Amino acid sequence: MRKVEICFSPELIHLHSLENKIVVVVDIFRATSTMVAALANGITEIKTFADLEECRQMSKKGYLIAGERNGLTAEGFELGNSPVAYLNEAYSGRKLAMTTTNGTLAISKSEGAEEILIGAFPNLGATIKYLQSKDLDVLIHCAGWKGMFNLEDSLYAGALVKSLESTHEASEDGALAMKALFEKEGHDLKGFLSQASHAKRLQNHNIESDIDFCLTLDLFSIIGKVDNGMLKSQEI
Amino acid sequence: MRKVEICFSPELIHLHSLENKIVVVVDIFRATSTMVAALANGITEIKTFADLEECRQMSKKGYLIAGERNGLTAEGFELGNSPVAYLNEAYSGRKLAMTTTNGTLAISKSEGAEEILIGAFPNLGATIKYLQSKDLDVLIHCAGWKGMFNLEDSLYAGALVKSLESTHEASEDGALAMKALFEKEGHDLKGFLSQASHAKRLQNHNIESDIDFCLTLDLFSIIGKVDNGMLKSQEI
Repeated sequence: MRKVEICFSPELIHLHSLENKIVVVVDIFRATSTMVAALANGITEIKTFADLEECRQMSKKGYLIAGERNGLTAEGFELGNSPVAYLNEAYSGRKLAMTTTNGTLAISKSEGAEEILIGAFPNLGATIKYLQSKDLDVLIHCAGWKGMFNLEDSLYAGALVKSLESTHEASEDGALAMKALFEKEGHDLKGFLSQASHAKRLQNHNIESDIDFCLTLDLFSIIGKVDNGMLKSQEI
Repeated sequence: MRKVEICFSPELIHLHSLENKIVVVVDIFRATSTMVAALANGITEIKTFADLEECRQMSKKGYLIAGERNGLTAEGFELGNSPVAYLNEAYSGRKLAMTTTNGTLAISKSEGAEEILIGAFPNLGATIKYLQSKDLDVLIHCAGWKGMFNLEDSLYAGALVKSLESTHEASEDGALAMKALFEKEGHDLKGFLSQASHAKRLQNHNIESDIDFCLTLDLFSIIGKVDNGMLKSQEI
């Protein structure tokens, strides 16, 4: 049986082996949800940046630029970190350069894995189907919040572990814990997450529609995958 | 309302503020359970060491020496990390020098807190009573396993958060998650933990009686508290 494990923070990723694994990077509120929304709605590729200034420079190369710091659109950027902004398809055919607080770091710290996917609830089913088609162990890399455990990424990880249980064994304690937590709370994600510290931060930014989007299952049948340093979609 | 938070690993403790908090260090299998057993059975003080050799030297000063590496008694030490070994009271009145893989590190990394306690299931009730008598926020510091999240320490943390809910608010996502997990799995700790990676390691060492002891609630009415660099008991 293949294995599945969870890393709760980029600060702990050095304790995990990445070799021969598919890493699924998850930052539910909102980086990876936004990436999935963008790829599913016509963005052809996404380049991620840790540095705001480097990202901004991509505008000159014809990229749409999206920048977020602490949950808000960064100054001078066309887009922030709102997935809903991509759903109108006005950006179809464009390339996107993106920088976020936590998600970008988790992607760059996943280098060395056999494959890197980005995960979100709106394409959970497609991601599961893809993972089950591959003969590789899975590591779910939660972006967390400034290095700390966060509830929404961990619950997504639990949902993934639960959905993979027929093919992938939960091989460490984090995966067992989050599978059990998802079994308990998965029927009302929004209710449970409304207690979470990050959801409270998001409420302050008035983005109820983003939260609803980020917690909706299986809107899209694509996966998001890193390909030569760029994120691209693949129909499943 | 006072607050309670969880740090899942000594590798993440730098992300938490320790100031004006009571830190409860927990290493269920088996360091802090063993410390509580020792203090409740007549050991007058415990000095902890990160280094095996330094700990061994304490023998010359009349200390009983206990050393464990990777779950086994270290060579040349009188005692390992088995709590059951202290229950016969043969060591009553003795001082103990102790070194363990994960627990000692978590205690030393908790320096800077207002107070440091050690937590275990056999004195959970006493620890709760003590925490509720103090007007301070609480940080539960899980020793983990080689830096990683582990299930038994996290479930203890969840039990503590749950028990404190009338006086201490779960102030971050880890505390919310573990409270919910304890609500689901707390009725059968041993059954749930039998899946855990550490429990499997312990089974290999044939120490069923230690596991039973470590998961038994409220055998003792003492707390274990760091006092001038030494662990001492206090009757509650």
